[in-house]
Amino acid sequence: MTTASICTIGDEILIGQIVDTNSSKISTALNTLGIKVRYMLSIGDDREEIISNLDKCLRDTDIVIITGGLGPTKDDITKDALASLSGATGYKESPEQLAIVKRILGARHIDLLDINLAQALVPDTCEVIPNQLGTAPCMKFPFDEKRYGHRAVLYSLPGVPYEAEGLLDAILEDIKNNFQLERIIHKNIITFGVPESVLSKQIESWEDALPEWLHLAYLPNATIGIRLRLSCYGADDESRVARMDQEIEKLRELLGPTIYGSGDDTLQSILPRLLKCPPEAARQETLSVAESCTGGHLSQLITSIPGCSRYYNGSVTSYSNEVKINVLGVDADIIARYGAVSRECAEAMARGVAELMDTDYSIATTGIAGPDGGSKDKPVGTCWIAAVHRNRTTGEVEVTSKKVLSMSASRDVNIKRFASNALDLLRRLVEQQLF
Amino acid sequence: MTTASICTIGDEILIGQIVDTNSSKISTALNTLGIKVRYMLSIGDDREEIISNLDKCLRDTDIVIITGGLGPTKDDITKDALASLSGATGYKESPEQLAIVKRILGARHIDLLDINLAQALVPDTCEVIPNQLGTAPCMKFPFDEKRYGHRAVLYSLPGVPYEAEGLLDAILEDIKNNFQLERIIHKNIITFGVPESVLSKQIESWEDALPEWLHLAYLPNATIGIRLRLSCYGADDESRVARMDQEIEKLRELLGPTIYGSGDDTLQSILPRLLKCPPEAARQETLSVAESCTGGHLSQLITSIPGCSRYYNGSVTSYSNEVKINVLGVDADIIARYGAVSRECAEAMARGVAELMDTDYSIATTGIAGPDGGSKDKPVGTCWIAAVHRNRTTGEVEVTSKKVLSMSASRDVNIKRFASNALDLLRRLVEQQLF
Repeated sequence: MTTASICTIGDEILIGQIVDTNSSKISTALNTLGIKVRYMLSIGDDREEIISNLDKCLRDTDIVIITGGLGPTKDDITKDALASLSGATGYKESPEQLAIVKRILGARHIDLLDINLAQALVPDTCEVIPNQLGTAPCMKFPFDEKRYGHRAVLYSLPGVPYEAEGLLDAILEDIKNNFQLERIIHKNIITFGVPESVLSKQIESWEDALPEWLHLAYLPNATIGIRLRLSCYGADDESRVARMDQEIEKLRELLGPTIYGSGDDTLQSILPRLLKCPPEAARQETLSVAESCTGGHLSQLITSIPGCSRYYNGSVTSYSNEVKINVLGVDADIIARYGAVSRECAEAMARGVAELMDTDYSIATTGIAGPDGGSKDKPVGTCWIAAVHRNRTTGEVEVTSKKVLSMSASRDVNIKRFASNALDLLRRLVEQQLF
Repeated sequence: MTTASICTIGDEILIGQIVDTNSSKISTALNTLGIKVRYMLSIGDDREEIISNLDKCLRDTDIVIITGGLGPTKDDITKDALASLSGATGYKESPEQLAIVKRILGARHIDLLDINLAQALVPDTCEVIPNQLGTAPCMKFPFDEKRYGHRAVLYSLPGVPYEAEGLLDAILEDIKNNFQLERIIHKNIITFGVPESVLSKQIESWEDALPEWLHLAYLPNATIGIRLRLSCYGADDESRVARMDQEIEKLRELLGPTIYGSGDDTLQSILPRLLKCPPEAARQETLSVAESCTGGHLSQLITSIPGCSRYYNGSVTSYSNEVKINVLGVDADIIARYGAVSRECAEAMARGVAELMDTDYSIATTGIAGPDGGSKDKPVGTCWIAAVHRNRTTGEVEVTSKKVLSMSASRDVNIKRFASNALDLLRRLVEQQLF
């Protein structure tokens, strides 16, 4: 099996100033190619540490991907260390990267200094994969079998997350061309609303009957739900691919409306599809949100999708009873009788915001995110969620609601669970797949 | 100098399923004690890899902190590896941790199974630091000089972030008792609104005149601003501590209203203090928010602070012009004449929401977060922000506004910059320190 190691370089990670998110994205990508990531490592901006650790990585694994340490000011350390490690005799200019440096700085009206021009200089032992999104290129250093007892390749990427991510496809392509990898196809099936333990019981006999070249993995996430990743090894064999699709069909039958998507879907990314239902509808349907305990997070999830203004009208965060009453039109009696954290209040908030923002659908949350507050009947982690559909032709309003219990000690985790449950309730209302 | 290494254990990190945030928090804490973190490492759930890598960590550094691999199902691998590495002859029960396991499962009405009881069993070579927030305790393994040529201590923590964080103080205390550390005092001064390059020019001569035992570090963050961390080494000498405070006073004079806080302050965490101004006021002042391009993120930041309902009434996310006009009361002519992304619209939104939610203060954002949209005059990354103060005694309304340009290619980064600039504008309005 082809193996890899991932190494981040930079004091800012070792002093805890920034969290390394690059390694996670890179390992996800490598895993989809069937490459085993043996370890990840973070080291400081120190020439000797860089050389000795990368030397160890190249000895241990076939592919080494490093990020960081390529900024114009720190340039010398990492690039110089790589030049030394690879036995370079000097530096060469990358014409493609130089053109990009000039374009980027020109667009920002920044004068071209020597330190900028130096970004396009690379050790003469490397090949350049141009970086369209930044000034530092990706450098590829191949090492032959004599050096480490096996063929090894090191890719050096800039540390800026969107630059590193932007280069990832080109690197994966290069890896596919350089290593004999078994063909693997991954397909994700995404579920929400059933806990992992229950889900695994439901599909136990299906899973047990899978052939050994078809693997199932559970990937749980508070915002997304549980992704079921099916991996088909040896996918050059077309009968295997066909069988994989059959198994996915069986899984869909077994789980029914627990499944809401596939691939990279999230509860918020499927909204464009959901709100165009039925597909023959001339105009898109619209959505609004009323939040109490989720405090803006639900609206933030929805607006994280570019182009959401086509179907999203907006939200009210009602953090006081007055706003619930005066802006959302919740009856003061409801709050007096049932409390703000109640089915009745959640439903009234959802009705109110749909009316206020004149939308076809709406969702509402009202609960106790903690860490303080709550009572014996309504402990921290309790949330009522509601979803509304207003039929503009008949004037009919359909309301559904549900109590969510999130028992995390973390305010942040509770808020995430409340918001994702609210999006799921909307999805089930649109698809008429209520609990 | 005392050195440390940090190691996370778990396949879920190597396949990219979760991002490791524990290591960053641990390294921040170790750095404040003046301990140098030499490297961070992530390895899989593999007994041999665990033993050989931890052996290397103990050889290389004085303190090794590991997280993860202690869940009830995976128990055996890490605990067994640690037992073997430390030469344990068997397991012993921790009565304190057993009591905690019983309390936690009891509260959740879960029956006590053998795998739960096993959480309180630890190798007989370790000392236990009880974990109040979860079932797996912290295990401390001391190694004497004969083993690695220097005294070394390994701490094993659970991987759940809030459990690991909850144990950190006790571990730092233990480290202080076990290692002779130079006393270091750190103080943060937090700034917003001036770029790092300009800031460093402004304080250049002050910084050059600092004694060598007083260090300055810049810690920039899109949401918080730039933290200036001053570290006083050899702080047992009281004259040094006094000098540190004098230097901070000088810095405050140099930077004036660019400074908004100290310690762990953020633009949202200082709101309780800000909105009680003037201090003699009988009642707390209140805040509301109108968001367009920030889509809920601004409200989410404000509500991330527990207890914010004392001063925060709520928000409107107006993602359509109709909501701006019908809910916030923005004049349709303003949008027709100046566009939704304009000073006039931002100010009208802020006025509107303060009126609607009857608050003393309000803030508004309207801009283009990208990645698509924008025009030559108003490119992606343009945002107008406004802040309002309504004086309830005189009926007077004070409005201030500002254009923010964020040139990131990332929608997410643009949204963060818009929101933090809006919070800073409010802060400057309250403190009467406008640009």
